[in-house]
Amino acid sequence: MPSYTAPMRDIQFVLHELLNVEQELKSLPAHADVDVDTINSILEEGGKFAATVIAPLNQSGDEEGCTYVGDGVVTAPKGFKEAFAQYVDAGWPALSADPEYGGQGLPHFVNNAFYEMLNSANQAWTMYPGLTHGAYEALHAHGTPEQKKVYLPKLTSGQWTGTMCLTEPHCGSDLGLLRTKAEPVGDGRYQISGTKIFISSGEHDLAENIIHLVLARLPGAPEGTKGISLFIVPKFVPNADGGIGERNAIKCGSIEHKMGIHGNATCVMNLDGAYGWLVGEPNRGLNAMFVMMNGARLGVGMQSLGLAEVALQNSLAYAKDRTQFRAAKGPVNKDKPADPIIVHADVRRMLLTQKAYTEAGRAFSYWLALQIDRELSHPDEKVRKDSADLVALLTPIVKAFVSDNTFETTNLALQCFGGHGFIKEWGMEQFVRDARINMIYEGTNSIQALDLLARKVLSDGGAKLKKFGKLMQQFIAENAGDESMKEFIEPLMDIGDKVTKLTGEIGMKAMKNPEEATAAAVPYQRVVGHMVYAYFWAKMAKVALAKQSSGDGFYTAKLATARFYFAKLLPETAGYIRQARAGSDVVMGLEAALF
Amino acid sequence: MPSYTAPMRDIQFVLHELLNVEQELKSLPAHADVDVDTINSILEEGGKFAATVIAPLNQSGDEEGCTYVGDGVVTAPKGFKEAFAQYVDAGWPALSADPEYGGQGLPHFVNNAFYEMLNSANQAWTMYPGLTHGAYEALHAHGTPEQKKVYLPKLTSGQWTGTMCLTEPHCGSDLGLLRTKAEPVGDGRYQISGTKIFISSGEHDLAENIIHLVLARLPGAPEGTKGISLFIVPKFVPNADGGIGERNAIKCGSIEHKMGIHGNATCVMNLDGAYGWLVGEPNRGLNAMFVMMNGARLGVGMQSLGLAEVALQNSLAYAKDRTQFRAAKGPVNKDKPADPIIVHADVRRMLLTQKAYTEAGRAFSYWLALQIDRELSHPDEKVRKDSADLVALLTPIVKAFVSDNTFETTNLALQCFGGHGFIKEWGMEQFVRDARINMIYEGTNSIQALDLLARKVLSDGGAKLKKFGKLMQQFIAENAGDESMKEFIEPLMDIGDKVTKLTGEIGMKAMKNPEEATAAAVPYQRVVGHMVYAYFWAKMAKVALAKQSSGDGFYTAKLATARFYFAKLLPETAGYIRQARAGSDVVMGLEAALF
Repeated sequence: MPSYTAPMRDIQFVLHELLNVEQELKSLPAHADVDVDTINSILEEGGKFAATVIAPLNQSGDEEGCTYVGDGVVTAPKGFKEAFAQYVDAGWPALSADPEYGGQGLPHFVNNAFYEMLNSANQAWTMYPGLTHGAYEALHAHGTPEQKKVYLPKLTSGQWTGTMCLTEPHCGSDLGLLRTKAEPVGDGRYQISGTKIFISSGEHDLAENIIHLVLARLPGAPEGTKGISLFIVPKFVPNADGGIGERNAIKCGSIEHKMGIHGNATCVMNLDGAYGWLVGEPNRGLNAMFVMMNGARLGVGMQSLGLAEVALQNSLAYAKDRTQFRAAKGPVNKDKPADPIIVHADVRRMLLTQKAYTEAGRAFSYWLALQIDRELSHPDEKVRKDSADLVALLTPIVKAFVSDNTFETTNLALQCFGGHGFIKEWGMEQFVRDARINMIYEGTNSIQALDLLARKVLSDGGAKLKKFGKLMQQFIAENAGDESMKEFIEPLMDIGDKVTKLTGEIGMKAMKNPEEATAAAVPYQRVVGHMVYAYFWAKMAKVALAKQSSGDGFYTAKLATARFYFAKLLPETAGYIRQARAGSDVVMGLEAALF
Repeated sequence: MPSYTAPMRDIQFVLHELLNVEQELKSLPAHADVDVDTINSILEEGGKFAATVIAPLNQSGDEEGCTYVGDGVVTAPKGFKEAFAQYVDAGWPALSADPEYGGQGLPHFVNNAFYEMLNSANQAWTMYPGLTHGAYEALHAHGTPEQKKVYLPKLTSGQWTGTMCLTEPHCGSDLGLLRTKAEPVGDGRYQISGTKIFISSGEHDLAENIIHLVLARLPGAPEGTKGISLFIVPKFVPNADGGIGERNAIKCGSIEHKMGIHGNATCVMNLDGAYGWLVGEPNRGLNAMFVMMNGARLGVGMQSLGLAEVALQNSLAYAKDRTQFRAAKGPVNKDKPADPIIVHADVRRMLLTQKAYTEAGRAFSYWLALQIDRELSHPDEKVRKDSADLVALLTPIVKAFVSDNTFETTNLALQCFGGHGFIKEWGMEQFVRDARINMIYEGTNSIQALDLLARKVLSDGGAKLKKFGKLMQQFIAENAGDESMKEFIEPLMDIGDKVTKLTGEIGMKAMKNPEEATAAAVPYQRVVGHMVYAYFWAKMAKVALAKQSSGDGFYTAKLATARFYFAKLLPETAGYIRQARAGSDVVMGLEAALF
């Protein structure tokens, strides 16, 4: 069985040495008194909870899966319910929730770091609280005061869980096609009918009630995405005192059998005149749902980071333990018949690739979560706007780039085990199967690439991208005279220049032909992702350089990993830039019938 | 359930229009009378057999898996046994076997094309006959006349099946560590004791007997790989009349639960003084086993090609059927609410990537199989040697490059399905899970990369590589004046030059430090693989250019796919070349303890 230990040293490095969050929080009145010790002690507890309560259920949950008992009843794998009760009892769901509704009011990045650990321990389990927190956020942003009063305390406590119901059999990415109908009853309620599929955590036995956020169309609503409204559809309608009332006509019809995340119930939900309550304005449902979707996209980044970390830990342990062949330069383990495989260059390539992507993913995603805190609670409007722009720009990167990288790194981790990696017992192949969904749900990675290039970059003439560029330029300027930073600063400048040039080229071509953008989007996204990682690796290298004389091997490793990143991973952009430049004809030229 | 139709048009294109096999066979006396019609009618029948008998058992075999009944007894999934009986009755195992032992004596490439189709239909099932054919080949090359007389007819008919028993719990890649012992009894028999793991098709109910080829050590044998001998260890010892005799002490202890290929039994085999017969010379067992291993490596290439083809077929059908969003330039399906997703540039990228890798893989692997026929039966010794060198050089490419590409393309095929790709029912995720093993078994892809660079390229100063280079140069010279071929010839020359330069650089550095080779091997292998594919794409483009005026859309598609390959896939070498040049320090520098 794989093991997991929360990577506290690296988490603390990112939060305190790289991002200096205590200082950052001083400018956010809502969090000004949150200090290093508070953060560390919460995350240490959280890491223990993840490692000791949730992780032991990962492999058994995969093996057992969820069960459709019949008549709409679904049970999660053994132990999931009890672990969720422990989670609720300890108050974890409330971590970064609003104190007005029972939350602890901690910054988002603390919750994010906690979620990294939960996901390392068990992605399938973590989706139950994860979607709950997403539903909380959507209602917090768009619910009426009454809705907030009824639902937020229950979602904050974890007494009730939440879902997002978007997909229908004929509409996945293209929500404009959705058909689920909402008929007004006349008393403020709506009756909703339709079929939703792929509803994660749609039905289960972890909580007494499930609050579904459902997209549907009002009578006479415009076609397409401008005629979609958002509704709260509770499994049990809350009664006057906030408790459990009548069973609503939303019912699980079946659960899917999937490649991975077996422990999470992926449900077909049938709505047969279920009562719902409108959230936000009519026909503006996608706008309200985007709060939840953006949260979910960052959430997918944290799932991917979590899997990358646990896969790295286990493959590293195996590489130190498993002996096979001699080191190329001669025996290391002279008294044994073979050396540990970590002596071999290609095993090291596989480990360092995992390490470089995982640690950059952590630095980047924690920083992005901090931007969300700035966006939500910085007193200066300009700072809020800048942070919001950075979050908007980089949400597709945290979703797609991190999940693509994790699919690569979990596969490298599996590969380190040789044939054993393919055997279920070792647990490595589960990480790969679980990681695979992250490239698909919450908007496929193709959709993310289009979102990045078309909506986030080209639509404002690169204004948001320039805001990230400004951060890079500042950092480059600060280090211009530092000879020891040259090896990091030069390639960072280079990739920044290349992104600027590539963006301009695609933008020019796309004005004449929109397919020039759609054909370039995926390789473009990988180039931008690497620019972001190069920035964070350069910044981490700077911290490590300053502290390497301490003799702490952590900084030696950090520097070596930075160098590996610049030498072995960033160079893949050379290929992607060429692919992004190849133009659309080569993709669009062939008639569909001739494929 | 996924569907499969044998890709006869493309198979015939490769065999007859690209490779002109009928002409090639005229110079091989053993096959001089095999003509186009014979080949086509055999493969058409083979394709039907694969599609109608084997393919329907793929998904059910995955779901059910093999069963360890107890006391060494294993059953394959429902229907496997009956399908194998049909396979045997129809004489398929004999296709390219020696007529002296009941074979049909057809060229190897015909068998290879047949195996592509079997693997598209069902990789797990195909491993039973595939390993049997491998055991046949090893015994055919190294068995005594008596051994051949006893075993080859039964393996040729398919009445008995075969396995290769190499791996032990503590030794996978590093066979030098193996411990299984063989004690001479004194009457020509040996008693063999030890534990073998990961034995594919090690025990099952498909055939009345199983012939294990087992690596073991004789008493006093030298340590390492030079003290390993090869033995025939039959499940039932054949009696005097060639029938089934006494049960031998080789027994399945358990079967593995794996990520994929569930329908093939992966066995722990316990040998407890089992009787064995030496094959070839004492202590030269690895040499004899390499016949089987090289065959198995080409076999993995055919497994990977088969999976790539079937995944492509299904994702293409889905992309033409599933409607979602409008085309970027405006509606195509005006009377429907959305367009088929094949109108979208990124879906086309995913389809064309699959198509480009699959069709190049077919051209390359069929050509390689033809080289084996030349190696085995060309009357001119120099031709035999040249072909043998090309086969040796390119076996790691057909194993690793094709399987790496297939893992990418089966994942792209899954991705085309969006969320449905993650659902078992659609069958796409099985292709990914099955494809994953191909990067591991028969020598991991890291081992293949080392084999290519160190053993096949550097050890003879690039002599074998130059033989492939000569083929390229000939083709380049033939097309020097052809303006219409320029777009293919120029990048082909370019990648050839780059490989020459890169090989020289790594060779120079590796003379001083062997880790310079081990650190560069994997990206080097991808660059060489692309050079090979660029050569075959240029050759296919030439055929297509010559015939495009026929109006047959097949050639239009072939040319478009060639252009896509050169524009969008070959460019990834730009990144890999930089990675291969990065040197070993960046990989080897960090102390293992600091990882």
